[in-house]
Amino acid sequence: MSAVRIQVINPNTDPGMTETIGAAARAAAAPGSEILAVCPAEGVPSIEGHFDEAVAAIGVLEQVRAGREQGVDGHVIACFGDPGLLAARELAQAPVIGIAEAAMHMATLVATRFSIVTTLPRTLIIARHLLRQYGFSEHCAALHAIDLPVLALEDGSGRAQQMVRERCIQAMRQDGSGAIVLGCGGMASLARELTQELRIPVIDGVGAAVKMVESLAALGLSTSKHGDLAWPERKALSGKFQSLYPC
Amino acid sequence: MSAVRIQVINPNTDPGMTETIGAAARAAAAPGSEILAVCPAEGVPSIEGHFDEAVAAIGVLEQVRAGREQGVDGHVIACFGDPGLLAARELAQAPVIGIAEAAMHMATLVATRFSIVTTLPRTLIIARHLLRQYGFSEHCAALHAIDLPVLALEDGSGRAQQMVRERCIQAMRQDGSGAIVLGCGGMASLARELTQELRIPVIDGVGAAVKMVESLAALGLSTSKHGDLAWPERKALSGKFQSLYPC
Amino acid sequence: MSAVRIQVINPNTDPGMTETIGAAARAAAAPGSEILAVCPAEGVPSIEGHFDEAVAAIGVLEQVRAGREQGVDGHVIACFGDPGLLAARELAQAPVIGIAEAAMHMATLVATRFSIVTTLPRTLIIARHLLRQYGFSEHCAALHAIDLPVLALEDGSGRAQQMVRERCIQAMRQDGSGAIVLGCGGMASLARELTQELRIPVIDGVGAAVKMVESLAALGLSTSKHGDLAWPERKALSGKFQSLYPC
Amino acid sequence: MSAVRIQVINPNTDPGMTETIGAAARAAAAPGSEILAVCPAEGVPSIEGHFDEAVAAIGVLEQVRAGREQGVDGHVIACFGDPGLLAARELAQAPVIGIAEAAMHMATLVATRFSIVTTLPRTLIIARHLLRQYGFSEHCAALHAIDLPVLALEDGSGRAQQMVRERCIQAMRQDGSGAIVLGCGGMASLARELTQELRIPVIDGVGAAVKMVESLAALGLSTSKHGDLAWPERKALSGKFQSLYPC
Amino acid sequence: MSAVRIQVINPNTDPGMTETIGAAARAAAAPGSEILAVCPAEGVPSIEGHFDEAVAAIGVLEQVRAGREQGVDGHVIACFGDPGLLAARELAQAPVIGIAEAAMHMATLVATRFSIVTTLPRTLIIARHLLRQYGFSEHCAALHAIDLPVLALEDGSGRAQQMVRERCIQAMRQDGSGAIVLGCGGMASLARELTQELRIPVIDGVGAAVKMVESLAALGLSTSKHGDLAWPERKALSGKFQSLYPC
Amino acid sequence: MSAVRIQVINPNTDPGMTETIGAAARAAAAPGSEILAVCPAEGVPSIEGHFDEAVAAIGVLEQVRAGREQGVDGHVIACFGDPGLLAARELAQAPVIGIAEAAMHMATLVATRFSIVTTLPRTLIIARHLLRQYGFSEHCAALHAIDLPVLALEDGSGRAQQMVRERCIQAMRQDGSGAIVLGCGGMASLARELTQELRIPVIDGVGAAVKMVESLAALGLSTSKHGDLAWPERKALSGKFQSLYPC
Repeated sequence: MSAVRIQVINPNTDPGMTETIGAAARAAAAPGSEILAVCPAEGVPSIEGHFDEAVAAIGVLEQVRAGREQGVDGHVIACFGDPGLLAARELAQAPVIGIAEAAMHMATLVATRFSIVTTLPRTLIIARHLLRQYGFSEHCAALHAIDLPVLALEDGSGRAQQMVRERCIQAMRQDGSGAIVLGCGGMASLARELTQELRIPVIDGVGAAVKMVESLAALGLSTSKHGDLAWPERKALSGKFQSLYPC
Repeated sequence: MSAVRIQVINPNTDPGMTETIGAAARAAAAPGSEILAVCPAEGVPSIEGHFDEAVAAIGVLEQVRAGREQGVDGHVIACFGDPGLLAARELAQAPVIGIAEAAMHMATLVATRFSIVTTLPRTLIIARHLLRQYGFSEHCAALHAIDLPVLALEDGSGRAQQMVRERCIQAMRQDGSGAIVLGCGGMASLARELTQELRIPVIDGVGAAVKMVESLAALGLSTSKHGDLAWPERKALSGKFQSLYPC
Repeated sequence: MSAVRIQVINPNTDPGMTETIGAAARAAAAPGSEILAVCPAEGVPSIEGHFDEAVAAIGVLEQVRAGREQGVDGHVIACFGDPGLLAARELAQAPVIGIAEAAMHMATLVATRFSIVTTLPRTLIIARHLLRQYGFSEHCAALHAIDLPVLALEDGSGRAQQMVRERCIQAMRQDGSGAIVLGCGGMASLARELTQELRIPVIDGVGAAVKMVESLAALGLSTSKHGDLAWPERKALSGKFQSLYPC
Repeated sequence: MSAVRIQVINPNTDPGMTETIGAAARAAAAPGSEILAVCPAEGVPSIEGHFDEAVAAIGVLEQVRAGREQGVDGHVIACFGDPGLLAARELAQAPVIGIAEAAMHMATLVATRFSIVTTLPRTLIIARHLLRQYGFSEHCAALHAIDLPVLALEDGSGRAQQMVRERCIQAMRQDGSGAIVLGCGGMASLARELTQELRIPVIDGVGAAVKMVESLAALGLSTSKHGDLAWPERKALSGKFQSLYPC
Repeated sequence: MSAVRIQVINPNTDPGMTETIGAAARAAAAPGSEILAVCPAEGVPSIEGHFDEAVAAIGVLEQVRAGREQGVDGHVIACFGDPGLLAARELAQAPVIGIAEAAMHMATLVATRFSIVTTLPRTLIIARHLLRQYGFSEHCAALHAIDLPVLALEDGSGRAQQMVRERCIQAMRQDGSGAIVLGCGGMASLARELTQELRIPVIDGVGAAVKMVESLAALGLSTSKHGDLAWPERKALSGKFQSLYPC
Repeated sequence: MSAVRIQVINPNTDPGMTETIGAAARAAAAPGSEILAVCPAEGVPSIEGHFDEAVAAIGVLEQVRAGREQGVDGHVIACFGDPGLLAARELAQAPVIGIAEAAMHMATLVATRFSIVTTLPRTLIIARHLLRQYGFSEHCAALHAIDLPVLALEDGSGRAQQMVRERCIQAMRQDGSGAIVLGCGGMASLARELTQELRIPVIDGVGAAVKMVESLAALGLSTSKHGDLAWPERKALSGKFQSLYPC
């Protein structure tokens, strides 16, 4: 198996978080894998709702298209709402994996039920919708929000990280869950440490998604272009969306 | 009750379809209601997949923001995939209604089960996801696609319209459904005629959504800004998305 | 569009509640609509369980049949359990809307999740069954009962109304819901005031159902007589049910 | 265990079907059990839709109340739609079992999936709703209707019986089911014979319900009066419903 | 109806619990029924997890095979996880009933919702999976564990029994359930007493399963050998499993 | 990351199939991974039903225990019914992955819906139950059986392989699926070839499970011993099960 090049897309425009995510991806990647950590040139500095996601999805698609031209072997969408996932799968033939998706899948492999710990309460509705879409509503015992914005994870104080840790402990004690899913790309660096401290699987989606891309590549599996995820219909995109053409 | 101004957004950039949709909206509107039929300046000429929807969602949000500034009393998203619906609800306080949503709701009020007739088979997955999201998976007996692109409805030949009609008849005979939902904004003008010919409710979402906006307005109900659909978090949008700021 | 005549049926025999309901219906009705508020001549004075509902359903059917003879354009069943709804749809060609149904539908249009506030705890099982039947189980965050009988809303003391208000506030704070559905026709007059005070949508089904009937009428849609909701089979009804013949 | 008296209520007013049902009940009853086969004095001669069910529910309640006064040990509602089931459970302390419920439960004990064979297609929607209410939607592989009215089973020609038999054979071959549920009280006499001929369980709900009543009685279990199924609230019933008072 | 011989299999190897279960079965059995209470010669002394269940399933199958040779009329698997149920149904033509299954079915006949009270918290996941498999997830209001091992029920101190009683009372007050299901074969002797003290149905699966076997036998129904539960494919079993051959 | 040792357990006793599975595992494994392909010494030669699965589960547990003593980094259960999966997870701390589980998860990452192609029709019920347990019932468009026994894949004639291929083509054309899951460990060698010929992802669970074990190992994640999957309770296993002690 030759080297695998994986594009890890931070859907927001924050460079610090792009670095955090890139580092987590590299820590998880196999020796032969190359990680290309990118973020959109234009968009939202953090993603905390449906509006932010809709904007971020365009940046994700631009990056997927660029990655496709660079011939990457897979794409990771590194925001816990998996913004633009199905659209990106239409635009790519290489595998596209969202980090919420990856973390939730992995959690069901090591525990019968898991809890989610995320940032703002308003993002929980997005996680709930993803659970339903992926089939895991009954595998999730509880969802928790620390009630701090995403970028608090990047303020250097460690306060948000401490709150994540405390909420993980609380979840472990109260929810009857066997594993915890971290609900934000910006929490990626906490997973290994918390897994060791709490002695239960604490799962970061960035690393999980990297492994899933590597796995699919090794198995010779790529996004199905038969049916629901076929290439976008050929049509002229106007104005600021021309950069996405030809799709 | 004073006059109600309703912005009807065709999420694609096709002027002909915007007219078709606007006419259907006006035909359904109450005497006092004013219909503002608009479409994005930039985007995709038709919407036939997840990629198209992601692009169209930005145009929808731009229009919602513009409509908000004009003080409209409600917004209709007139594409059967309801692109950008929850994002638009964050951005608006006035009601925002998708035409798939509206048609599906109405169908459950006049029949125990309904069928959907739409354009390309690849769009059926979007309808399926909406059925699940809205709670109507068990109310939908079957989904049908005529296998023609959306813009075939605008080619003036009447061929697509004839195929819609035939598929509706087939659905009525085979599915055990009591009503049919037309799965494209471009089919809006067919509903009344088919309802009369087939003698079962054939439902167009454009008209249905207009009535729902009028209804909510009359009841003094608007999009909840408490919790999941609160205003977007304040943050700087960069580049081509600046037109959406302040959100 | 010509004037719309809507029969609003209070399924219990309490004249005071019929008035409350009628007033709420008129407050919601469009200028051209006429409201005929009626209640059965015989039946139960309030509806607080399955037994009461079974009795009330006969009164509903008698009224629907009478309304049909008067050529009304639609029927509203103004009890939160929607007693006799599908039977009434068999008996009518004009639309028939239940107030639980109407309120729940409306709630999903303005919020991702809603709470219900009703009277006696024993009626919650009926609401739960309706949520499942209509497809909204996952859209309802919580159900609350003030533990007072229905007619406490008519005792003039305002105590029940105060308890409804307090429970709405509690629900808004605890449930993570964006909207509240009032679970009794007798609460209809509280919706607008609570919507303004709490600044979230507080939804009364009576008004909601009136708007849905008006909407369906305007769209030319009536109850499907094809299949599941076809006219009742012709057969002789005996004894006290003869008044329902010919159905 | 002393003798058990079981009231078997045919919810329609047809004496022939009451006899058929009574005979099936007696054939299934334990040596010590006594079967009281009754039908309402007033109502519908056959039950083939929601309207018929609503009317029949009153007759069921009248009979349950009468049976209660006679001190019976349990009640069977012998129509496949289980009309008035939860209302009857409020009105009774002795167990109340519907024949659709009983047959469906039994079917899941001897096969992973079952098929239903019933009379008119319009009654299938009622069976579907019951499957969902009882939790068996995923246990039912298919529903079939012979498209003859209920009373065709009583016309003495044997034609309906022959069509039931043919449809059972077809279901066994095509559906992948291990058992068949007969969807009408009037088919009760066919079950044993078809079970032997087809060599798969063909289940009649009348016999099944009788056994369930006997079972609950032997276990000392009766309808819970705690909570959802508590006695009806005390209130004056007016007019033709006075016969149900005191409930 | 001739005498019915029912094999009641305690899947663990504890003789005391086999006696408890046998006594409960005899107390529930009809006058003509004979109870053969057995347990495997080899296996686990108590069953408190998936591993224990996998081991116990072999003992269950050995007993079913032995019972089949003795010509019993039905088999009961008397452990609340129903270990080996579908495998046993393949191996038997007589009915096979699990006690969790039996108790859950019975509970839905006398209440709209039930609670479960069991032993160790780790067994709750098994009960949850069974609820889903049998279709009763929405009928179960809550699950409770007293956090004592199964064999504490056999230590003669009565402490576990007292904790079961307290938890039943708590469940009745808090869960909104109308009935309680006892979640362990070792609790079988408590059901009648608690039913009388608490005045709600408290259901033991051993008695319930015995009645279901008797019912199926009386109705002439046995496990379907058509399709999913057909006899095991003929094949050589090696080593310690030879005792199961011919299957 | 050091070398990963993965125990791949063929739950049946067929040496040829153990080889086929071992080869597929090695073809998928990363350069540094070592595959230990094993099968039970005693059990069933092929697995085609619930009975076979119950027997095979013991062999799986014996192998897991042996693998644990050898310090393997993960275990694969290479039969499409995933026999003994949760029991094995109790017995292991290293990850345990079933091949049905692995293939289904992978399929949802590259397509919105998948089809399953397996051997005997009677095994479909097992696949259906797994789909529900894993959350993928709505992601599976259709299930197909070629109606040949498992060992026909090992008879050297290629006939079974040809039938698998034909059924895959049929599924691709009719089901609207984007991917196909091969429903038997014995089909493992067909996946790559069919993926290339059909140009849609055709997924073998053996390779997929190997990648998942490697992924979890790389992420430092192992089976949660907190809660539902904790080590089996310490207790004496008797007779032929002593080999499993201490568990």
